Amino acid sequence: MKLRIGIFGGSGYGGAELLRILLARADVEIAFVTANEHAGKFVGEVHRNLYGLTALRFVAAPEEFESLPDVDCVFLALPHGQALEIAPCLPSSVKVIDLSGDFRLNDAREFLEHYGREHTAIELQGEFVYGLTETNRGEIKRARLISNPGCFATATLLGLAPLVARGVLSGRVIVDAKTGSSGSGAKASANTHHPQRMNSFYAYKPFTHQHVPEIEQELRSVGEWAGEFVLMTHSLPVARGIFASIYCETKDELTTEAVRALYEEYYRESFFVRIVQGSPDINWVKTTNFCDLGFAVRGRSLVVFSAIDNLVKGAAGQAVQNMNLMFGLDERAGLMLFGSNP
Amino acid sequence: MKLRIGIFGGSGYGGAELLRILLARADVEIAFVTANEHAGKFVGEVHRNLYGLTALRFVAAPEEFESLPDVDCVFLALPHGQALEIAPCLPSSVKVIDLSGDFRLNDAREFLEHYGREHTAIELQGEFVYGLTETNRGEIKRARLISNPGCFATATLLGLAPLVARGVLSGRVIVDAKTGSSGSGAKASANTHHPQRMNSFYAYKPFTHQHVPEIEQELRSVGEWAGEFVLMTHSLPVARGIFASIYCETKDELTTEAVRALYEEYYRESFFVRIVQGSPDINWVKTTNFCDLGFAVRGRSLVVFSAIDNLVKGAAGQAVQNMNLMFGLDERAGLMLFGSNP
Amino acid sequence: MKLRIGIFGGSGYGGAELLRILLARADVEIAFVTANEHAGKFVGEVHRNLYGLTALRFVAAPEEFESLPDVDCVFLALPHGQALEIAPCLPSSVKVIDLSGDFRLNDAREFLEHYGREHTAIELQGEFVYGLTETNRGEIKRARLISNPGCFATATLLGLAPLVARGVLSGRVIVDAKTGSSGSGAKASANTHHPQRMNSFYAYKPFTHQHVPEIEQELRSVGEWAGEFVLMTHSLPVARGIFASIYCETKDELTTEAVRALYEEYYRESFFVRIVQGSPDINWVKTTNFCDLGFAVRGRSLVVFSAIDNLVKGAAGQAVQNMNLMFGLDERAGLMLFGSNP
Amino acid sequence: MKLRIGIFGGSGYGGAELLRILLARADVEIAFVTANEHAGKFVGEVHRNLYGLTALRFVAAPEEFESLPDVDCVFLALPHGQALEIAPCLPSSVKVIDLSGDFRLNDAREFLEHYGREHTAIELQGEFVYGLTETNRGEIKRARLISNPGCFATATLLGLAPLVARGVLSGRVIVDAKTGSSGSGAKASANTHHPQRMNSFYAYKPFTHQHVPEIEQELRSVGEWAGEFVLMTHSLPVARGIFASIYCETKDELTTEAVRALYEEYYRESFFVRIVQGSPDINWVKTTNFCDLGFAVRGRSLVVFSAIDNLVKGAAGQAVQNMNLMFGLDERAGLMLFGSNP
Repeated sequence: MKLRIGIFGGSGYGGAELLRILLARADVEIAFVTANEHAGKFVGEVHRNLYGLTALRFVAAPEEFESLPDVDCVFLALPHGQALEIAPCLPSSVKVIDLSGDFRLNDAREFLEHYGREHTAIELQGEFVYGLTETNRGEIKRARLISNPGCFATATLLGLAPLVARGVLSGRVIVDAKTGSSGSGAKASANTHHPQRMNSFYAYKPFTHQHVPEIEQELRSVGEWAGEFVLMTHSLPVARGIFASIYCETKDELTTEAVRALYEEYYRESFFVRIVQGSPDINWVKTTNFCDLGFAVRGRSLVVFSAIDNLVKGAAGQAVQNMNLMFGLDERAGLMLFGSNP
Repeated sequence: MKLRIGIFGGSGYGGAELLRILLARADVEIAFVTANEHAGKFVGEVHRNLYGLTALRFVAAPEEFESLPDVDCVFLALPHGQALEIAPCLPSSVKVIDLSGDFRLNDAREFLEHYGREHTAIELQGEFVYGLTETNRGEIKRARLISNPGCFATATLLGLAPLVARGVLSGRVIVDAKTGSSGSGAKASANTHHPQRMNSFYAYKPFTHQHVPEIEQELRSVGEWAGEFVLMTHSLPVARGIFASIYCETKDELTTEAVRALYEEYYRESFFVRIVQGSPDINWVKTTNFCDLGFAVRGRSLVVFSAIDNLVKGAAGQAVQNMNLMFGLDERAGLMLFGSNP
Repeated sequence: MKLRIGIFGGSGYGGAELLRILLARADVEIAFVTANEHAGKFVGEVHRNLYGLTALRFVAAPEEFESLPDVDCVFLALPHGQALEIAPCLPSSVKVIDLSGDFRLNDAREFLEHYGREHTAIELQGEFVYGLTETNRGEIKRARLISNPGCFATATLLGLAPLVARGVLSGRVIVDAKTGSSGSGAKASANTHHPQRMNSFYAYKPFTHQHVPEIEQELRSVGEWAGEFVLMTHSLPVARGIFASIYCETKDELTTEAVRALYEEYYRESFFVRIVQGSPDINWVKTTNFCDLGFAVRGRSLVVFSAIDNLVKGAAGQAVQNMNLMFGLDERAGLMLFGSNP
Repeated sequence: MKLRIGIFGGSGYGGAELLRILLARADVEIAFVTANEHAGKFVGEVHRNLYGLTALRFVAAPEEFESLPDVDCVFLALPHGQALEIAPCLPSSVKVIDLSGDFRLNDAREFLEHYGREHTAIELQGEFVYGLTETNRGEIKRARLISNPGCFATATLLGLAPLVARGVLSGRVIVDAKTGSSGSGAKASANTHHPQRMNSFYAYKPFTHQHVPEIEQELRSVGEWAGEFVLMTHSLPVARGIFASIYCETKDELTTEAVRALYEEYYRESFFVRIVQGSPDINWVKTTNFCDLGFAVRGRSLVVFSAIDNLVKGAAGQAVQNMNLMFGLDERAGLMLFGSNP
């Protein structure tokens, strides 16, 4: 019997990728996908990559949630703030995976500070499990409600978790992170205007990106580490991909081999983390659910390089990986997305 | 004594390029530049390439044109329709160069059909001279009012004019034209959204682009030719540049050398037309006022390749070239913009 | 039981795409893949998109073909000229799909003219079937030897075949075709040097591209048409994709709807041809096996727009589609490659 | 009277930019430009941006330097190692500006370690002055021999010099630097192959880039600072530009305003350093001689963002700026290169 799925927010890039991944699966049925501005249109008219591959149409989001089609799992791929409204209304028989930032932060004050709005569902917040599959697999399997990590948080946490878990860090950590233009979403805006963006590289939100408290919160859950954390986000002229250069100090001098061994051991069960020689390259993870990690060491200076596709491992792919776990499936189901060369 | 210049519409790409070219000149003074949404801001805040190079500020467009600062020449770099309102109000002592489509078409019905509005200044239309410098130099020198050609029209007409003038064509002409994303203007829109545009190539406005009647009208003024004319416009993922592949039939078989000689003779006085070996490449004309032309011949089939920078030879550069002529200057003044490699 | 496959030439882009497609299939086993310069290396070291997805290693091409592992089908994804040497040596029990130009032309003199070498296996040539699946399905099913079409030929023939088959064309046909940089292969060269290519658009091989005689030959097999055929190839700064603008004259005036109906009828059984509204866009076919076709009509002028991924429908995808037919499988097997947005 | 200039190495990007800048000047005459593989060809055939702008031809490098045309100044824009051979042979009446790394390092052992060859002209090394105009103006004015800084060194040193000179730093400095593809030179190579590079971002030469000892050496000459220095270089899919994110710790907490004031005071005489609001963007410095600097502060964490065009301020522009000073000219002469929007 097929898993019956509902998607709220099917017109953005997160929704586009959920559809790309889920429509290809024989064991999943999409019961509905919403997109208010496109209600009534065929999915393949909006996401023209899917033209000819599905007869599905977008529907408007329901006014009342009792009338929802019967589904096993709902994905919320909506702008920040909307999941706060919808999640509390969903029947408790339905599993929920929220791709927005609404349920990532446990602290209501931090939420207010970074998202600019009151958290109106703070009790429900306590039931949400943070969906970074590789560090939280056990809890995810048992969860009904998942808050899917942010894209920068995913690249950074997968790069740092083994070091924090094994307690090898001292001092501060600096993450110099760069994202492709799809990170700004599917709507055109000044900073994604092609004539300028194609020749641009610049920093934005220095020190204050909303993924900072999310990363700090999750690092605390992974291990003991109390250094200063700096995240600097930059814009890169590719369509897809995040590359994070993570500058650490280790308590003791480590060899590259020792670092590699530490990561390989930590990620032994994690198919989607690949430990590579030299530097990863976003070219090799684009359109895939992989996170590629590489290292360089000099004395007690350690740099970890982390590359993901922001829309797959950084959003929709990870969401499906979590869904697989929540329903007792192989976490790789539907996610064997072979990237291409070139 | 310096030429005193006014610019209406300084925030778009046409205005940006006028400023880049004119601010570098010692013999020109910019008396004012308008940009309603940026009134009061420094030019270098909006066009950050010019930061540190000018203390000029944007002003709002005047309500009444008597209060205009005293200027010798005004450029209108506004969205279609606005020059229709402004041009009739300008003092007759001022020379005017309009970069929009408002005064390009002599026929009011064609204007209505292609621009979707009534032509409200049709008598003034009769005084406007079409500003394709290379084919119309004599009239431009004597003109007070210039309508600057469209970007596709410039690339196409420079490619076709020698053939039509010498009467060597028979049959229909097909122009397959491709433009960079800056052709859509400085405002972000769905078709210039970087994640999609960087991997896109598509056609638009098949058969119906508004430059079609403009090209047909000007070809009639250049020579006798009565074949069918097809213009197909496409979008290209570069920031700058137009490339037109112009498919012709000649009455007789011509050698490549004969074609080359015909063009070299026709453009002997035209510094900004370069006849190249093989194909031109928009890479070599970007940021310059050059039009590069190349040819291929097989029997009576002749293909002309024409490459320009849509914002320079296709807009602001040509406008300044016309200004130079109108004021008795060397047409190259301020336009020796050396492109770069790469 | 799995199909056992051998690949000659696994390091280029054609080989990379064959591996991407075939490694994902449960019903196929890759018995060997050659790459002389990489012999002994893991496939995932060279095609780093495949790292972690296969333990396969490259081998050197065999000196003697008796020692080949036992396989059902061999793909030749080699530079032009090498299949001429290998194909005659392969056991007659093995089916062969050649992705090069070696066996596409029936006429030895045309081969010499366009490929610059003598055809040394001209008797075998007679046994090769041209592998444009959509026009030649019946013969392909019965074939042992397939010559897979060129990328420009695929985009052009899929756009023209219905018109030639139904006899609606008169006069000449002009194809203005543009290709992404992967069309130049996996080896770096001056024309794919990033600093220049990213801002380039230019024409090359005017009138003389080696796909011209291939297209003319196949059009003759599809229907009666004797007009002049012009192919002009251009280079485009995207990684993947071909876009062909095909300018035709029809004997009678046709409406867009009539043209659409003609194509839909012709391609009724062809899943991988999608008839779209307006213009296709290479963005929507990249990494997929689709050919998207659109139309514009004015009087007796008809323009067909054809977009494919040069490496999939224009090479490896089509090769696998042919393999599927040759072995009695659904032609879509392994080719449901969902493109992505963006 | 014109300055007479010779250029060794005119076919690379450094030479291309020297030609672009110097050919536009009325006060400079290029006596010769060498390019062995292009000897006899017109400059405009190789650098097609310059076609029509100069009748200059490339010559072969001379066998004996006595036969050199009489020149005032020579630029060496050659691969590493060649200036070592040529500089000692040039007449002492000629001023020399070397754009390679041959004379940047005072320590012969460090040179051997980072450039992989013996330094064969170490006495001459003592006469070379490091040509970072903004920190070394006085010495440059009096110098006969200039070693022009590396591109990463320029971006980094301009970002760090004020802090080191004013003694405000403590602890280590991490520079996360990203360069466009023209940084790899004008010859095609695997890492600049367009199909891959356009979607790539990766790190290279971690900790070991040859600009590290150059930067450390020059920081010592600017002020007292003894922290650890980390430089991590990355490749970016733009043609031009370097962006460096420089992570510092200050001894005391500083406000953004205080940092800004410090930089404005330090660079008061330096036209080509622009202090910007927020982040700089390589889009706004491309093709110009500007270095744009911006800041972000949190507690004692200070991040400096530095953006240059690697080929202009990072190579040819800076070389000409130094030439201007050496000959008593305004340092801006010929360098008022207005960037463009877009």
